[in-house]
Amino acid sequence: MTNLTNRQIKLAARPVGMVKPSDFALATEPVAQPGPGEVLVKVQYISLDPAMRGWMNEGRSYVRPVGVGEVMRAGGIGRVIATDDSSIAVGDTVTATTGVQDYALVKAADVVKVDPRAAPLPRYLGVLGMPGLTAYFGLLDIGRPTPGETVVVSAAAGAVGSVVGQIAKMKGCRTVGIAGGADKCRSVIEEFGFDAAVDYKQEDVRKKLREHCPNGIDIYFDNVGGPILEAALANLACKARVVLCGAISQYNATRDDLRGPRNYMALLVNRARMEGFVVFDYAARYAEAARAMAGWIAEGKLKAREDIVDGIETFPQTLLKLFRGENLGKLVIRVSND
Amino acid sequence: MTNLTNRQIKLAARPVGMVKPSDFALATEPVAQPGPGEVLVKVQYISLDPAMRGWMNEGRSYVRPVGVGEVMRAGGIGRVIATDDSSIAVGDTVTATTGVQDYALVKAADVVKVDPRAAPLPRYLGVLGMPGLTAYFGLLDIGRPTPGETVVVSAAAGAVGSVVGQIAKMKGCRTVGIAGGADKCRSVIEEFGFDAAVDYKQEDVRKKLREHCPNGIDIYFDNVGGPILEAALANLACKARVVLCGAISQYNATRDDLRGPRNYMALLVNRARMEGFVVFDYAARYAEAARAMAGWIAEGKLKAREDIVDGIETFPQTLLKLFRGENLGKLVIRVSND
Repeated sequence: MTNLTNRQIKLAARPVGMVKPSDFALATEPVAQPGPGEVLVKVQYISLDPAMRGWMNEGRSYVRPVGVGEVMRAGGIGRVIATDDSSIAVGDTVTATTGVQDYALVKAADVVKVDPRAAPLPRYLGVLGMPGLTAYFGLLDIGRPTPGETVVVSAAAGAVGSVVGQIAKMKGCRTVGIAGGADKCRSVIEEFGFDAAVDYKQEDVRKKLREHCPNGIDIYFDNVGGPILEAALANLACKARVVLCGAISQYNATRDDLRGPRNYMALLVNRARMEGFVVFDYAARYAEAARAMAGWIAEGKLKAREDIVDGIETFPQTLLKLFRGENLGKLVIRVSND
Repeated sequence: MTNLTNRQIKLAARPVGMVKPSDFALATEPVAQPGPGEVLVKVQYISLDPAMRGWMNEGRSYVRPVGVGEVMRAGGIGRVIATDDSSIAVGDTVTATTGVQDYALVKAADVVKVDPRAAPLPRYLGVLGMPGLTAYFGLLDIGRPTPGETVVVSAAAGAVGSVVGQIAKMKGCRTVGIAGGADKCRSVIEEFGFDAAVDYKQEDVRKKLREHCPNGIDIYFDNVGGPILEAALANLACKARVVLCGAISQYNATRDDLRGPRNYMALLVNRARMEGFVVFDYAARYAEAARAMAGWIAEGKLKAREDIVDGIETFPQTLLKLFRGENLGKLVIRVSND
């Protein structure tokens, strides 16, 4: 392995406000051999997630921050090319927290073997990966939909939102998706089967939600925060549930610009709850979710879309694409073709 | 009754921002006889509540707004002096939504008979009335305390907060009360038995909560909103519950000044929920709560304090006292001595 070179995207500085390319640096180093219990993965795809912005900040969160000078954290999928653990063989395809790099040395205990013939690899980072699991547990465990209820989802064309809408529909709910731009709104309805779409870039979200949800919103699955969260709170039904999954509109805000929902007392008036969750807490039930999702995909009930960008070196720019809402579907970088 | 004069405090204008005396007007009218199914109550005490500010606003809430020109809504207690319903006799003491006036004509079905010898009358507007019920259901049903947990309460010297702290203590919790000023903080500890008090007028609430809650806050019972809510969110324990009972710091804010908790994503990081409730939803269980509260009072486990101001004509000024946090204990106006 010593003749292989590992390109790595490292965190060069803690961003202030919107992340910028100079917050990252490209470095190279020789590839090391796996030690006992480790495997070496040749990374094929990495996942770009809104949560990455939080990992770049100092301070307490649900995972420790990425240190300045460390390889940027990322989920990835790739092929094992060396192993020092009997449970994983050379040639296995695995998902793992690989980081943004060509080669990742990871503990065998921390990788998950997947079948590369069962689905295109990027799908294991989307509907069959963390975003899919996030949608599944967030909607079903925190939102607890019942047939006939109205479910509103923000970032509805995204990796999590598109799955939330499709599962809600399978559970007998009426679904309204909020997305930015005509293309995404078309995809929300035609591809992901939502009953209605609201284009937050062109329409008055509060007013449109009132039109599309005449009996109020029973479940609001929030990926964005900011004024769209306020618009949803203004239209809650009695006993509504607001599932806090993310707040992409706020992740790049400086502390002084952070915005809380000014009408949060709508939770009181409507006897509603707003609840956060972290998908990692459901590890013991991943298999249950993966089985359900794979079944729905096989039956054609659950559709997925990936937005694939080539080249690890594009990472800083591609991450910006995510925060600008320019991706359609699960955003991944193809690191290698083989 | 025609020779009796009824003084009434009416809503004269919808307040903008902080309520002011000119938003009310004193009027008089002759007292009318009860019609079929009605009773006439001579009001002895009325309750002053933060929620009153919300009732003065136009627009949808959990009860309809008070109309301009109408008698200001208030809970009260008094003696029946005329009746046209067989279920209520002259001389009965009853609680009802009397409004801010000397005499109230109310439906017999809407009054609750109480025993004037079992407790001082103002207590039926405090710990034995809506504030007590609010504390009971909010803490037990929404907060769901378990022994050993840490419960933080804002407005801890107030009508609701003081009861929340005492019930939490009975349920085996550690209790921290937030109140304004040394007198209130002393009362929080010495009178209401909290384990610790934080004086928000003198101390850094966020820092003090961190000191007093080394394992984080399991239940935060919020009566105030604003920066104190943010300080509590910054100190949540995993799986915390934030009980939204009120937001007195926000009730007099104009729309542009309204403030949501900027760090609401602490709910996600801590897998926590924030939930609102309205005490009226628990009407079917009022008797259960009243029995429990009366029992605790009899055993000396639940203490109550009332802040009594004389004279219905003081209502506009006395209401301001509430919003300035100048009352210690349940604020009531004595309308009449007999």
